[in-house]
Amino acid sequence: MNIKPLGDRILVKRIEEEEVHKGGIIIPDTAKEKPQQGSIVAVGSGKVNEDGNRMPLEVKAGDRVLFGKYAGSEVKIGDEEYLIMREDDILGIIEE
Amino acid sequence: MNIKPLGDRILVKRIEEEEVHKGGIIIPDTAKEKPQQGSIVAVGSGKVNEDGNRMPLEVKAGDRVLFGKYAGSEVKIGDEEYLIMREDDILGIIEE
Amino acid sequence: MNIKPLGDRILVKRIEEEEVHKGGIIIPDTAKEKPQQGSIVAVGSGKVNEDGNRMPLEVKAGDRVLFGKYAGSEVKIGDEEYLIMREDDILGIIEE
Amino acid sequence: MNIKPLGDRILVKRIEEEEVHKGGIIIPDTAKEKPQQGSIVAVGSGKVNEDGNRMPLEVKAGDRVLFGKYAGSEVKIGDEEYLIMREDDILGIIEE
Amino acid sequence: MNIKPLGDRILVKRIEEEEVHKGGIIIPDTAKEKPQQGSIVAVGSGKVNEDGNRMPLEVKAGDRVLFGKYAGSEVKIGDEEYLIMREDDILGIIEE
Amino acid sequence: MNIKPLGDRILVKRIEEEEVHKGGIIIPDTAKEKPQQGSIVAVGSGKVNEDGNRMPLEVKAGDRVLFGKYAGSEVKIGDEEYLIMREDDILGIIEE
Amino acid sequence: MNIKPLGDRILVKRIEEEEVHKGGIIIPDTAKEKPQQGSIVAVGSGKVNEDGNRMPLEVKAGDRVLFGKYAGSEVKIGDEEYLIMREDDILGIIEE
Repeated sequence: MNIKPLGDRILVKRIEEEEVHKGGIIIPDTAKEKPQQGSIVAVGSGKVNEDGNRMPLEVKAGDRVLFGKYAGSEVKIGDEEYLIMREDDILGIIEE
Repeated sequence: MNIKPLGDRILVKRIEEEEVHKGGIIIPDTAKEKPQQGSIVAVGSGKVNEDGNRMPLEVKAGDRVLFGKYAGSEVKIGDEEYLIMREDDILGIIEE
Repeated sequence: MNIKPLGDRILVKRIEEEEVHKGGIIIPDTAKEKPQQGSIVAVGSGKVNEDGNRMPLEVKAGDRVLFGKYAGSEVKIGDEEYLIMREDDILGIIEE
Repeated sequence: MNIKPLGDRILVKRIEEEEVHKGGIIIPDTAKEKPQQGSIVAVGSGKVNEDGNRMPLEVKAGDRVLFGKYAGSEVKIGDEEYLIMREDDILGIIEE
Repeated sequence: MNIKPLGDRILVKRIEEEEVHKGGIIIPDTAKEKPQQGSIVAVGSGKVNEDGNRMPLEVKAGDRVLFGKYAGSEVKIGDEEYLIMREDDILGIIEE
Repeated sequence: MNIKPLGDRILVKRIEEEEVHKGGIIIPDTAKEKPQQGSIVAVGSGKVNEDGNRMPLEVKAGDRVLFGKYAGSEVKIGDEEYLIMREDDILGIIEE
Repeated sequence: MNIKPLGDRILVKRIEEEEVHKGGIIIPDTAKEKPQQGSIVAVGSGKVNEDGNRMPLEVKAGDRVLFGKYAGSEVKIGDEEYLIMREDDILGIIEE
């Protein structure tokens, strides 16, 4: 059972902070709206522009991404929690 | 007696949480704005763009979808309650 | 004496709830902003797009439609009360 | 001495309610924002679109129109009071 | 020493109410936002549209115009006070 | 060491009021948001439009300009204070 | 381990004020929203326009830039703190 995000939305599995510390990126405690990390599970097929063409997303499944703390809506599939957000909520891709 | 949604609107039959649990997807209790599940009953023919062309919707009747808790307007046909919302209120399609 | 709505506006005759019950569609009491039913009396010739072309409306005179409770402005012609609203205020067409 | 409205603006002579009653259209007392009637005295040559073309207005001098109670700015020419408003403030044309 | 307004801005010399009364147009006392009269001293060369073309203004130097009471910014050149406003703040041209 | 403004931004050296009085233009004391004078030090290369073309600015380095009192952000280069603002904050060019 | 900003976002290493003083640019204490300096570490590939083309950024990695005090979101990579902001938050490039 899967979720296919609509338009420019993406499905993200949040990476918990413990894992984040091991991976070497630490999110500062003082920032009011701390960016979060996650791994992209599925992406929509893109927004449709005025000419009727889909604008493909810049991110793809498997990308490890940074996003704002309050981005997206939470959803549970089986026992796992995910986030559905818009691509514009993604700040950047973490490359290793 | 049917309702044909206008433009980019869709008619959705909400799936109650009990059914949701059986289907394996559980919506978390803590999220402030919990996504809801529903089944699409009818879709509009799409918004008209500036060139006068209809932009077809990405969802179709029969799709099982996730949407925000406060999305859409409620309407009753006979004894059944439905929701009319815009396609943009749909977060994703549930594929089985 | 008639009113021709301008642009993407339409003239609607509200259908009272008693008639609605007879017709089989019941609007729930609990919803904060209950959709209303009406019959379209006249439609505008559509908004003009950036290229100077009129974008024809999706609804037509005679359509039975659903719209939000606070949609439109009231106007009386002779003894009859009507509503003038924009097509975007229409949620869907009721087909029988 | 005349006023030529600019762009998509129109100059309207308000029709007082007494005359309205005689003409058969009565504006309801209960509506918070009651539509008003007027006769168009002069119209602008239309807004200029992105391509530099003027988009002609749908109304013309002589049209009897309905508009919102708070639409437009009042102006006096000699002893007569007028309203300057945008075409989009016009709800509909009254045809007899 | 002159001021050349930028884009769709215009430089206006306000006409005082005493002169207005002599000219036959009286602005009502009761309106909350009374239109004002002025004479256009200089106009900008127009806004640039998305294609890089300037959209020429509908008003020109010498035009006597009506504008909203709070339109524009005041500026003094030598001993004379002027207003710089956008063309969209102009309600209409007074033709004699 | 120089600052190159980005897009449609410009770098302005404010002209103090004493100099303004000598130059013959006096800004009124009573206006709530008094326009200020300055001299343009550097201009950006213009905003990029939807087609990917830069839209050149209407002002250039050396222009003496009027702008709103609260326009722009202050920045100090060496001992000199400057303002960085958008071209749209410029009301007009002072020509001598 | 790197961060690749998405769309029109850029990754900036803030330059502390002490270094700024040595470099000769002093940010005034009195301004409410003081511009800050930073060095661009990485840039996104640009926003996608309506035609599906990427609009390349005006700034590049290595540029020393000025930006508003509250621009961007903070993120830590290893022990270093960075900012991710949109290109539109950049006021200008410092050229030496």
